[in-house]
Amino acid sequence: MNIRFYNAKILTLTDDYEILEGELWVEGSRISYAGKTGVKHDGSFDREINAEGNLIMPGFKNAHTHSAMTFLRSYADDLPLLDWLNKQVFPMEAKLTGEDMYHLSKLAILEYLTSGITANFDMYFCPEDVTRASVEMGFRTVMCGAISQYTGETAYALDLLENSYKQFNHYHERIGYRLGFHAEYTAPRPLLEGIASLAGKYKAPVYTHVSESISEVEQCLERNGTTPPVYLDSLGIFDYGGGGFHCVHMTEEDLAVLKQKNLTVVTNPGSNAKLASGIAPVKRLLDMGINIAIGTDGPASNNCLDMFREMFLTTALQKLKEKDASALDANRVLYMATAGGAKAMGLTECDTLEAGKLADLIMIDLHQPNMQPINNITKNIVYSGSKQNVRLTMVNGRILYENNTFYVGEDAEAIYAKANEIINSKR
Amino acid sequence: MNIRFYNAKILTLTDDYEILEGELWVEGSRISYAGKTGVKHDGSFDREINAEGNLIMPGFKNAHTHSAMTFLRSYADDLPLLDWLNKQVFPMEAKLTGEDMYHLSKLAILEYLTSGITANFDMYFCPEDVTRASVEMGFRTVMCGAISQYTGETAYALDLLENSYKQFNHYHERIGYRLGFHAEYTAPRPLLEGIASLAGKYKAPVYTHVSESISEVEQCLERNGTTPPVYLDSLGIFDYGGGGFHCVHMTEEDLAVLKQKNLTVVTNPGSNAKLASGIAPVKRLLDMGINIAIGTDGPASNNCLDMFREMFLTTALQKLKEKDASALDANRVLYMATAGGAKAMGLTECDTLEAGKLADLIMIDLHQPNMQPINNITKNIVYSGSKQNVRLTMVNGRILYENNTFYVGEDAEAIYAKANEIINSKR
Repeated sequence: MNIRFYNAKILTLTDDYEILEGELWVEGSRISYAGKTGVKHDGSFDREINAEGNLIMPGFKNAHTHSAMTFLRSYADDLPLLDWLNKQVFPMEAKLTGEDMYHLSKLAILEYLTSGITANFDMYFCPEDVTRASVEMGFRTVMCGAISQYTGETAYALDLLENSYKQFNHYHERIGYRLGFHAEYTAPRPLLEGIASLAGKYKAPVYTHVSESISEVEQCLERNGTTPPVYLDSLGIFDYGGGGFHCVHMTEEDLAVLKQKNLTVVTNPGSNAKLASGIAPVKRLLDMGINIAIGTDGPASNNCLDMFREMFLTTALQKLKEKDASALDANRVLYMATAGGAKAMGLTECDTLEAGKLADLIMIDLHQPNMQPINNITKNIVYSGSKQNVRLTMVNGRILYENNTFYVGEDAEAIYAKANEIINSKR
Repeated sequence: MNIRFYNAKILTLTDDYEILEGELWVEGSRISYAGKTGVKHDGSFDREINAEGNLIMPGFKNAHTHSAMTFLRSYADDLPLLDWLNKQVFPMEAKLTGEDMYHLSKLAILEYLTSGITANFDMYFCPEDVTRASVEMGFRTVMCGAISQYTGETAYALDLLENSYKQFNHYHERIGYRLGFHAEYTAPRPLLEGIASLAGKYKAPVYTHVSESISEVEQCLERNGTTPPVYLDSLGIFDYGGGGFHCVHMTEEDLAVLKQKNLTVVTNPGSNAKLASGIAPVKRLLDMGINIAIGTDGPASNNCLDMFREMFLTTALQKLKEKDASALDANRVLYMATAGGAKAMGLTECDTLEAGKLADLIMIDLHQPNMQPINNITKNIVYSGSKQNVRLTMVNGRILYENNTFYVGEDAEAIYAKANEIINSKR
């Protein structure tokens, strides 16, 4: 389907944060033009959308999430991280079937669409079920390996990871897979060594939870005599890049590892605040030139999947941490939430709006009181934006959400009913 | 107009945080019934609204704001508090006319409605213009005195405050006025003594900005040998109650004053984070039994007027500050954002949903992915809610916002155009 957006403001992200007035064409899954009005199109469009002066920009990339955890939203709040994990999350997760995860991931995808998110970097078991939900709904998902000591014998876990890596990188045009594991504290050394071997074999980056809580760091120090990033790096885990989710408690040595191995930090400020884990040193990372992406983390810890709230938190918490209101510019945050995430996820064709790129884009309604007056559109989005401003979400050239209605091939109410049925059957 | 909501979930706030299934009747400006289905109504309704299982709850009270500052949204971000005030805000404000403030306040009221806010506690100059906007749009506003050394001679400023107090408490059924002044650091001692006299004369509470930044506290210590709350209290300012906006940097002595004088603290976590001012000791205040309300502060410092974001920040920042994920329960936050604010503003008829109370209420759309599954509705609202969930906002029995459309007697686009015209004419 060929679609023309006209009468639009466009943040292409190709030229700093400049916003141009013009139009954008989508042909099939790709952008064929993004620029000033007046250029002639050969052929016809199936649909021409008057953007009414609203903003078209790259979709947000939710660079760390556990989609299927929607079933635990508002179920077990207000507990410390390790209690929350061990007493609530792990026992409930153990009851989930693959079919459950398929349905629960659908609920998360609906929420992503309402927040202008066009791709998720999803760490969860059963990639076949999570990706099935994504493929059926027209969404884009990069899975991240989630193996740990609970997956089974070391050889079994490593086989699972390698097979998933091979399978899901050739599974569907909108699905990818990156090597990954749950965390240092759930991965014995032989498992980590095996993962490092896979990284070497495929010259592939590796992603994992890193230094989310103080106790995690302390326990790693006790076990290994060093911090998680340094320990993991010493085993060769990051020899082909990758990155860490959270990275809240970083030593100077940790930061040096991130820089040296060209790693990405995916920050999750909402989850880190709600679980009282702390504030990641985002400004410091930015000053060091480290790539930063933003994730919501799972809905059990956040509890919502909203990149607007995460963007505000990313900058506001840095201002608090640094005691400096100029600590982190809104435009840099917008970059992290879009192109920074795309880089982490290997979605180099989904980062900017220009001819040839995949059409993963959103329309932000500027005709809302929180976007007025138009003093500075990108600052308005980061400091004042909300889900309410998302007028349209397009993935791979297809409109999946427009004017509060989902176009995902299934009724939203049926997805809600299924999620309620699942949690009620596990209590 | 008589309106019946049926097929509703109702959070009345009369009985803890219990949610009942039933219906709610509005007759004229008041609630005539809120309870189970099955009770017979004598007479007919002008409109019967199927709530479709959605939640009806008391409207949010934005207990500290400067509505007319919408014109500075995203205009001067990323500066320290006093630079921001002295170099950007004060010079721009000096150019505003009363007519400007009237139009700019309208823009803020539109945004309040999208966030389920049914009343604002507004500290700004020209109460006649701010209240005119509110009255015309059908909104509810309690003005707070804003005098300072910049208002003029002491006698003039005090006359202005007293006249405003008398005038705007008998001006319109939806308008109130509370004694107040900008802050200790802009009020010389004779002015403060005069305000204390007025408090005594009218046995009236007094509100002001209190200990928002460290430098404000340090400067007060230098000038007066003590902190703002203790100094103001020593002059008799709080002899008839009142409260402080912000209250970020509190000593033990300050907390004792708050408790002893039964003051309200209005916390503004978004603004305090964005301006790097710090985190107010909300958990401590709650433990002491001090009334707490929540405000967005003005749109120049926040930059949005969104009680959902403020509620999440209120609890999330306490969890960070206390290093304790159980630091502040979501239900208590919901109370602060509704009844806590009503108490501060003197809106004792707008705090709960029960027969006889004024019909200031909202409908929250639970048929959205961020509200599913229904594990815990009040936690969902605080941890996961967004403007997108506000389906209807009613003030004084009149629907002012429903299904993304405003019913305020004026086209939203005209209000946006006017706001842009004003800021563009002042640059």
